[in-house]
Amino acid sequence: MAAVTTLVRELGAAIGARYVRAPSAEELEDGTRWTGLRGSADALIAPPDAETVAQAVRWCYEHDVPITVRGGGTGLSGGAVPDGGVVLSMERLNQVRSLEPEWWRCEVEAGVTTHQLQRRVREVGLSYPPDPGAGATSHIGGNLATNAGGPHAFGHGQTRAWVLGVEAVLAPGELVRIGGPTRKDVAGYDLTSLLVGSEGTLGVITAAWLRLVPPATAEQTVLGLFPGIRSAQEGIQGAFTCGAVPVALELLDGGTLQDAGATLPIEGAAIEWQSLPDPTSAVLLVANIEGDLVEATAARGDALIDAWQEAGAAWTAAPSAAAASTLGEWRAGVSGAVAARRGGKLSEDVAVPTDRVADLLAGSAAVARRHGLEHAAWGHAGDGNIHCTFLLDPSDPVRRDRADQAAEELFSLAISLGGTVSGEHGLGRLKTGHLGEQWGEAAVAAHRAIKEALDPKGLFGPGRKTD
Amino acid sequence: MAAVTTLVRELGAAIGARYVRAPSAEELEDGTRWTGLRGSADALIAPPDAETVAQAVRWCYEHDVPITVRGGGTGLSGGAVPDGGVVLSMERLNQVRSLEPEWWRCEVEAGVTTHQLQRRVREVGLSYPPDPGAGATSHIGGNLATNAGGPHAFGHGQTRAWVLGVEAVLAPGELVRIGGPTRKDVAGYDLTSLLVGSEGTLGVITAAWLRLVPPATAEQTVLGLFPGIRSAQEGIQGAFTCGAVPVALELLDGGTLQDAGATLPIEGAAIEWQSLPDPTSAVLLVANIEGDLVEATAARGDALIDAWQEAGAAWTAAPSAAAASTLGEWRAGVSGAVAARRGGKLSEDVAVPTDRVADLLAGSAAVARRHGLEHAAWGHAGDGNIHCTFLLDPSDPVRRDRADQAAEELFSLAISLGGTVSGEHGLGRLKTGHLGEQWGEAAVAAHRAIKEALDPKGLFGPGRKTD
Repeated sequence: MAAVTTLVRELGAAIGARYVRAPSAEELEDGTRWTGLRGSADALIAPPDAETVAQAVRWCYEHDVPITVRGGGTGLSGGAVPDGGVVLSMERLNQVRSLEPEWWRCEVEAGVTTHQLQRRVREVGLSYPPDPGAGATSHIGGNLATNAGGPHAFGHGQTRAWVLGVEAVLAPGELVRIGGPTRKDVAGYDLTSLLVGSEGTLGVITAAWLRLVPPATAEQTVLGLFPGIRSAQEGIQGAFTCGAVPVALELLDGGTLQDAGATLPIEGAAIEWQSLPDPTSAVLLVANIEGDLVEATAARGDALIDAWQEAGAAWTAAPSAAAASTLGEWRAGVSGAVAARRGGKLSEDVAVPTDRVADLLAGSAAVARRHGLEHAAWGHAGDGNIHCTFLLDPSDPVRRDRADQAAEELFSLAISLGGTVSGEHGLGRLKTGHLGEQWGEAAVAAHRAIKEALDPKGLFGPGRKTD
Repeated sequence: MAAVTTLVRELGAAIGARYVRAPSAEELEDGTRWTGLRGSADALIAPPDAETVAQAVRWCYEHDVPITVRGGGTGLSGGAVPDGGVVLSMERLNQVRSLEPEWWRCEVEAGVTTHQLQRRVREVGLSYPPDPGAGATSHIGGNLATNAGGPHAFGHGQTRAWVLGVEAVLAPGELVRIGGPTRKDVAGYDLTSLLVGSEGTLGVITAAWLRLVPPATAEQTVLGLFPGIRSAQEGIQGAFTCGAVPVALELLDGGTLQDAGATLPIEGAAIEWQSLPDPTSAVLLVANIEGDLVEATAARGDALIDAWQEAGAAWTAAPSAAAASTLGEWRAGVSGAVAARRGGKLSEDVAVPTDRVADLLAGSAAVARRHGLEHAAWGHAGDGNIHCTFLLDPSDPVRRDRADQAAEELFSLAISLGGTVSGEHGLGRLKTGHLGEQWGEAAVAAHRAIKEALDPKGLFGPGRKTD
């Protein structure tokens, strides 16, 4: 404990004692806690502004102290769990610096939560479309660091698509601004996109200029229940080809419906699911359509219903707007409902080309069977990004090990289908080491060269996102 | 000439004599020719496939030969004009490797022209939205290398927004694939976005996976003629706030209308312009609106007309679909019409925050006056990206020098307004050296570190895009 005290004291002397403390147990843990992943750190720094972040980084860089950046701590790959050194918390950088609705833009500090931003933007009649989940506690800075996705990434793009510029602290402690309120800028290399998705391993994003848009004026939600994954694959294709042009296309498989299907808040849906010959093989697709007018949007919904019926859907429906809203809440609770079955889960975020979703579902279920694990899968079918999930009792170390092995096989499966080990969560602590399977050697060498160029001492998230 | 023969012979022996030749005069020139910018090169390589590109790069890297990548040669900042070494032409990499309309994606080689791709995509009922201009000859590889923009970048984003992944040759001659048909992938740093917009200075893009979308089913075009730049600035703001949500918002100032206004193919527009108290101070705004249905789109057009009338427009109109198409052709010819006045022009691509467009127009005109030059400006008002233009007689070296000086002041002006020296053309040979005015020292150092990491010998476009 003497060492802890020393670092806290020295850092406090350098940047202000009130901004440095010992991290709490919670601040050393994986937010998802399925692994029981716990980190260690000698101090937590919570600077009040970007200049103090730069000061803190400068001190750490001089003293060879590793830095783990922490946003809201809601990451699903352990990216905010420290491995020695200091935790650099963005909790005090929580100001919306500017919001200019008349120009569809704002400047937001990294520690503003997703919901805070969305609420502020909604109040002025605009929309910030990314909806990566955990919005009440996740930070905008964390969203940028992971290039967070979510259901509406299908139509509106991932977080990166909304970032005009960033303020960041780069090694060895320099505050830089790249981009800003200007909407187009090709003067320099796209360092903004490089920092977005870099998971705190190339520097610390302290603020961002974001693009906003007016919200859609009409919305329609459509459901289709498919008897099996092959007909669901046809349903996914139909959503691309029927002209409905959905902005979100979500999938929930039979394993997911096993835990959440009975409470499906749409009249008839739960009954239809339960009366299928094999409910565990069923797949529910849910599409959100946005448009100009209620009638036109409804017509696009009808086109999707027709396409899904042709693809063999057992049941289709376009619920009322109120029912669609309830459905959204139900959808947000699905992950928790599945986890409740055994008390825990290992849920991944692999993504594959959209024509390979059925192969991914079949392959992932087969992996689970081989390891004697229960399986469920749900996610963003329009982007081929599926949360393949192995259920487990967290207190059963045998099943936890099996789930870890199953995840390794799942990563190989996704790569063999032309996909990625991470569609939206990032590598964090849990998936580093898998990039080499996905990229060739020369591409990984370029990746590593960039890391070395921007973080020559390797202090930003040591050992992470390296390969 | 002996040196030329040697390089052509040696390169021919290494990668195949039929792929190596002496470059033509045209291949050594700036496509826009306003500067008379001429380059030099000892050989031109036109490989038939990506593997041979890698071979060629490997040979050049071993022999310390600089490489200038050449697409369609339509760039406006001299990026394809060589400065010694070899020209690496993408002309033979002209295959659409795959086109999967049912999954909204395609894989295209770098040498496919913009129009070829757009036509192929249109034939299968889809759209590739970027429209950077010079589509008949510009290459997709060049579009990616400059992250090309154009009118519809306002609503649909620049080229980068449509790139799922790239195949590229990195130093010292390695063919890599980053990304692919998968729509979401956050496993590695975003090397795709880093290569896009890097202007051939970090490697050679040989092919790309692109995202496609269904085209809009209804379109509406609206024009507003404003008596001066301050009311036009209000008109730009009105386009953001009135609910019309245009996908393109173009601007043509009085100097531009002086050359192109008389042929404005919309009934009444030319007359209205000419009868303004001061036609040289007028500004024409043109908005494109896309939507679900003709009626809904027309209603959004009406909202814009109302907003523009409130902002002081002297005249507004929503032409027929046929007239809108003719208007598009007229718009594409504006640059040539302005150049014809004096035989030449120096046209830049600065961009500023959208609230500063009037300040940019006023400041650019003042710069022109100080240097005794005629001035015109047009461009993408929705993105604050304006082609501020100084007219000149190419055979008059005094005015050419003055235009060069005026351009320097224009760059400083754009930066002082919070903008950039390049919104869509890139730095090329002409604007390198200006990044340091726009970015701080530490950001430029990071930029340079990335260049050194990926091109340690500095052979890809030597001296360009460095600062």
